[in-house]
Amino acid sequence: MARMIESYASGTWFRADDEGQSVRDAATGEEVARFSTGGPDLAAMVRHGREVGGPALRALTFPERAALLKATALHLREHAEELYEISFQTGATRRDSAVDVDGGFGTLLSYASKGARELPDDTVLLDGPAEPLGRGGTFLGQHVYTSRPGVAVQVNAFNFPVWGMLEKLGPAFLAGMPSIVKPAPQTAQLTEAAVRLVIEAGLLPEGSLQLLAGSPEGLVDQLGVHDHVAFTGSAATGQVLRAHPQVVHGGVRLSVEADSLNASVLGPDVTADGPELDLFVKGLVTEMTVKAGQKCTAIRRALVPHHLVDTVVEAVAARLAKVTVGDPRHPDARMGALVSLEQREALRDAVAQLRRAGEVVFGDPDHVQLVEGDAERGAFVSPVLLRVDGDAAAPHAVEPFGPVSTVIGYDTVPEAVALAARGRGSLVTSVVTQDPAVARELVLGLAPWNGRVLVLDRDDAQEATAAGGHGSPLPVLVHGGPGRAGGGEELGGLRAVRHHLQRTAIQGSPDVLTAVTGRWQKGAAQRTDEVHPFRKSLAELRIGDTIRSEARTVTLEDIEHFAEFTGDTFYAHTDPEAAAANPLFGGIVAHGYLVVSLAAGLFVHPDPGPVLANFGVDDLRFLTPVKAGDSVAVTLTVKQITPRRSADYGEVRWDAVVANQDGAPVATYDVLTLVAKTWPPAEG
Amino acid sequence: MARMIESYASGTWFRADDEGQSVRDAATGEEVARFSTGGPDLAAMVRHGREVGGPALRALTFPERAALLKATALHLREHAEELYEISFQTGATRRDSAVDVDGGFGTLLSYASKGARELPDDTVLLDGPAEPLGRGGTFLGQHVYTSRPGVAVQVNAFNFPVWGMLEKLGPAFLAGMPSIVKPAPQTAQLTEAAVRLVIEAGLLPEGSLQLLAGSPEGLVDQLGVHDHVAFTGSAATGQVLRAHPQVVHGGVRLSVEADSLNASVLGPDVTADGPELDLFVKGLVTEMTVKAGQKCTAIRRALVPHHLVDTVVEAVAARLAKVTVGDPRHPDARMGALVSLEQREALRDAVAQLRRAGEVVFGDPDHVQLVEGDAERGAFVSPVLLRVDGDAAAPHAVEPFGPVSTVIGYDTVPEAVALAARGRGSLVTSVVTQDPAVARELVLGLAPWNGRVLVLDRDDAQEATAAGGHGSPLPVLVHGGPGRAGGGEELGGLRAVRHHLQRTAIQGSPDVLTAVTGRWQKGAAQRTDEVHPFRKSLAELRIGDTIRSEARTVTLEDIEHFAEFTGDTFYAHTDPEAAAANPLFGGIVAHGYLVVSLAAGLFVHPDPGPVLANFGVDDLRFLTPVKAGDSVAVTLTVKQITPRRSADYGEVRWDAVVANQDGAPVATYDVLTLVAKTWPPAEG
Repeated sequence: MARMIESYASGTWFRADDEGQSVRDAATGEEVARFSTGGPDLAAMVRHGREVGGPALRALTFPERAALLKATALHLREHAEELYEISFQTGATRRDSAVDVDGGFGTLLSYASKGARELPDDTVLLDGPAEPLGRGGTFLGQHVYTSRPGVAVQVNAFNFPVWGMLEKLGPAFLAGMPSIVKPAPQTAQLTEAAVRLVIEAGLLPEGSLQLLAGSPEGLVDQLGVHDHVAFTGSAATGQVLRAHPQVVHGGVRLSVEADSLNASVLGPDVTADGPELDLFVKGLVTEMTVKAGQKCTAIRRALVPHHLVDTVVEAVAARLAKVTVGDPRHPDARMGALVSLEQREALRDAVAQLRRAGEVVFGDPDHVQLVEGDAERGAFVSPVLLRVDGDAAAPHAVEPFGPVSTVIGYDTVPEAVALAARGRGSLVTSVVTQDPAVARELVLGLAPWNGRVLVLDRDDAQEATAAGGHGSPLPVLVHGGPGRAGGGEELGGLRAVRHHLQRTAIQGSPDVLTAVTGRWQKGAAQRTDEVHPFRKSLAELRIGDTIRSEARTVTLEDIEHFAEFTGDTFYAHTDPEAAAANPLFGGIVAHGYLVVSLAAGLFVHPDPGPVLANFGVDDLRFLTPVKAGDSVAVTLTVKQITPRRSADYGEVRWDAVVANQDGAPVATYDVLTLVAKTWPPAEG
Repeated sequence: MARMIESYASGTWFRADDEGQSVRDAATGEEVARFSTGGPDLAAMVRHGREVGGPALRALTFPERAALLKATALHLREHAEELYEISFQTGATRRDSAVDVDGGFGTLLSYASKGARELPDDTVLLDGPAEPLGRGGTFLGQHVYTSRPGVAVQVNAFNFPVWGMLEKLGPAFLAGMPSIVKPAPQTAQLTEAAVRLVIEAGLLPEGSLQLLAGSPEGLVDQLGVHDHVAFTGSAATGQVLRAHPQVVHGGVRLSVEADSLNASVLGPDVTADGPELDLFVKGLVTEMTVKAGQKCTAIRRALVPHHLVDTVVEAVAARLAKVTVGDPRHPDARMGALVSLEQREALRDAVAQLRRAGEVVFGDPDHVQLVEGDAERGAFVSPVLLRVDGDAAAPHAVEPFGPVSTVIGYDTVPEAVALAARGRGSLVTSVVTQDPAVARELVLGLAPWNGRVLVLDRDDAQEATAAGGHGSPLPVLVHGGPGRAGGGEELGGLRAVRHHLQRTAIQGSPDVLTAVTGRWQKGAAQRTDEVHPFRKSLAELRIGDTIRSEARTVTLEDIEHFAEFTGDTFYAHTDPEAAAANPLFGGIVAHGYLVVSLAAGLFVHPDPGPVLANFGVDDLRFLTPVKAGDSVAVTLTVKQITPRRSADYGEVRWDAVVANQDGAPVATYDVLTLVAKTWPPAEG
């Protein structure tokens, strides 16, 4: 008997002592491992996550968590070959494995990078601007995101044992939630190998990653208000979870990403000889054959203008005929095996149902020619293309989870949208068209029914294909879809992190909100002392440090001179009569750029010091016109301090308010500077 | 028999012909209306919303929808007295009614304003920046929000018959979703009156607002993937909805906002004689007595440092003793009646349970002194304060929906957080403290368990009270909470609008994304013609209109002169040796403000024309240092056009890229201008 796949539970590796069930090589049928029908103590795992992993994770700031994710991805990448080797057992070719294995590392690195660049150096994340809640400025509201003191249970599908784990782990980890990963039995040995690499490297805080290689029976019963369940798999299992008492009554947050009946629409503008037709056909064949069509994003329905159906069927069949099938280890096998014989049976059942609605125009679900492999013991299957004319329901309801797709004809754009919508919500639909008006109509019609819509044309085809095309969820874009697709959302950059956090509106005085958020809020205390804040290093600067400048009078000569010098001779600055007619100014006004330039002259300290550069300005608004004879003064306050981990400087965001002689705000903006961590620089 | 409350269903007023049930005046017990136990054809209502209301609404842009909401709020405000009159029947005093009636108008106006100012002049809303998906710039991703082709079913609680309707209607309407409003029977006559005012004014597109004054039995069965149910009411009913087959299997989106066991925490830093103690006591008494405590946000648990429990109990009792109870129409009645005798029975049951855990220290649930009214037929009740010492479960589990609260002692801040968390998720918790460090610890501990946290102190007390304090959801802040509070989110400005929309990632070429989103995307076509775009009115300008300027050489003299003129003599612009030592520049560089000032000189057209003003700059980033001898040129492209409905000009957002002689980007930013709708101005 092969070895039992182990769990990593409550800080130790756990091997179940039951017999378990067989995990077989998809291509050879040989037993490669066993998967327990029992498992470790689930209540203890949940407790360990909550009490050990969670507190350790939440003691780290967002950038610290990001750094650990990066180290994890790089460590795994060094050991990629070990994972590739195991991946063959799942029926995956080398190309298929790249999507799973390298795709997983890439996703983790993307989250590491987002966490380092876009999250604050804190444990609390702000959402949107502060909202004034009174006219006096003493009462503000600020939405924040904080970490929930629970665990993230991640139930993954068999088809992406590495990517599936990492794309859920990354956002949960950044959000400060410990993960309990539950892999699918069919490919759990690969997830186990990846988790073992991570655990043995000792990179992550203990308790932040646990692996449940066993039955999840009773796991959700252990969960409550602050726990999260992220499920990827069949729509049917998603529904079972959604009805679970702890979800209905217990407050468990559930996110479901289910396989769906995704479509690809060939635009009505496309001609038989144009490059878009070829893109459509290539995309369809790729989606049918990568991972032997076992992707929740694969194209199950090809919607084609009626007059092009014959052309498309012919072209797809011709390409499918060249797809060699066989043991994924064989260099000539372009398509490997389904994950198991059971999956092949289920696929054949689905094809039988579809067949009742239309005709098979390529392939035979019961026979396949192999370049190498055992057609009986290996779960091989031929790609199958069906064609359905008319109003049949099956193609919009039955999901063949394998290399199977159905071509369906349509007449008008609204009809194409309606057909796509019959899938009752999908992860992704692609549109192939070269006409931007057709693209807008199709995309806006399809968008409410999809988590992602891809528009392919000759302009983006090369880069779209390189990025993975229709079937590839990308870390920066949301993955998930409404209705049948589960209604959940994963990825999408920091959106997935926020899905793991609790959003709360905080109301209070500016000083309280500054203390809570770690970011200076308008109206909060401003500290001035004899040291100009440009003379303070990042280590010395504090939120609220302020400089209030002298005032400078802006003369008509200044305005005229600035116009001449810069060439900005806009009439409002140069022509008294025309400026007087301007409905907003009623006379000559200073250039906005002159005002901010003079403001900089008022606040900078000229000598070399810790402030290295002004790298940008945000949210500049000109509020009151400055006329000749007005004077301006600027108040600059430290709003936010963000050290960069990999540099000897950090970012300081300053709140700038330029006011005139009456105290009226003339311009408000944020000044962004780079400031050395220490000054003078530490001796290297 | 009193008149039957009518439904507005499928375009007509519908009066059920069953006997229905009695709706009684809360104070006098008189029958004031009847509520049908049957109702109109629910399937027809859903169809009418989907097929008539939805398409009409979605044909309008966001600002057009906002304008209709504003007109609706103003029309209702003109008729406020009619609503106040009916509101007395629900047991509400004039002050209580202001929260419901005027609070409702205010919420609608807030949404109207957000829709006009913050949403694009389109039917599609962008989410976040475009994401480059390849290095060549031919393939981008952009998240968008689009309207779902379904209906929004809104099930409201009895306690806010006007506000409850309007706070759900506003966001749904802005999102392009038709509403079916289901009021609670006890106060449906008031909702009916408000809906009748709106319908009779003919302001909203037919089908965008329907009223179901009848049994909702079977309504959710009619719903599917694109429909939305927003429920406010008891946690128990929320759970029933969550388990509904159309929610579990049918893809219906459900948002639950349930009454919760909200708390108020008196900080450990507060002293018996400080103003914060008084704020805490006043806040508690207000929350107990407004609407006779029938608010889902009311304070049910007062968490007080042990050594202050006696003080607090005494002070609260003293204030409660002054609360006069009676017919809400009587000018001396500070607190009115519960909504019904049934509610009084339920409240007495809850108090009986709480009493087993502690002692009543003020009031008697069975007896009340009235300034006017019938203590038998009217649903009057005395405020009741309880005190619990020790570890009793009841105060954290039993919700007395009336003027009842429990004082509970604690020792440490973590203990206070743990006690608050025993409510298993709340809408709101308030914290009264003057110490920012205590505020941060309490707020960040409480935030994961709450949708809102209010920090009260002497600084914000006046404005916080004016804004409604602990119990008042505000349109700009989220309302809802995790766990027992339902897990839903309402309000929060545009957040609630987005909850009604579908988010979708769109992938495509820059030209396609520009066509789909109505906003110019980097890399999309740029049109130049002989007319300078500053010579084009809003009506003539098109997305993608571009001006490419001549180049201008930046000399050392320019830099020196700018330093001297503006006073910005930062060493990187003036001191060759120090500038050479700067790790980022390695030599004298031009001021960033000089670069953008020169760029303006290169792109403006000097003559009077349709461009009225530059009112701001967004996202300015300096990417490459400009050294003496470098030349700069600017490309300015129309990115977004937003007409203002109430002015004869609109906003134009321009994409600005300043590049050097090598084509490297030196600075990128958005320039914001106001542009006249026509030029020359139309004769007034």
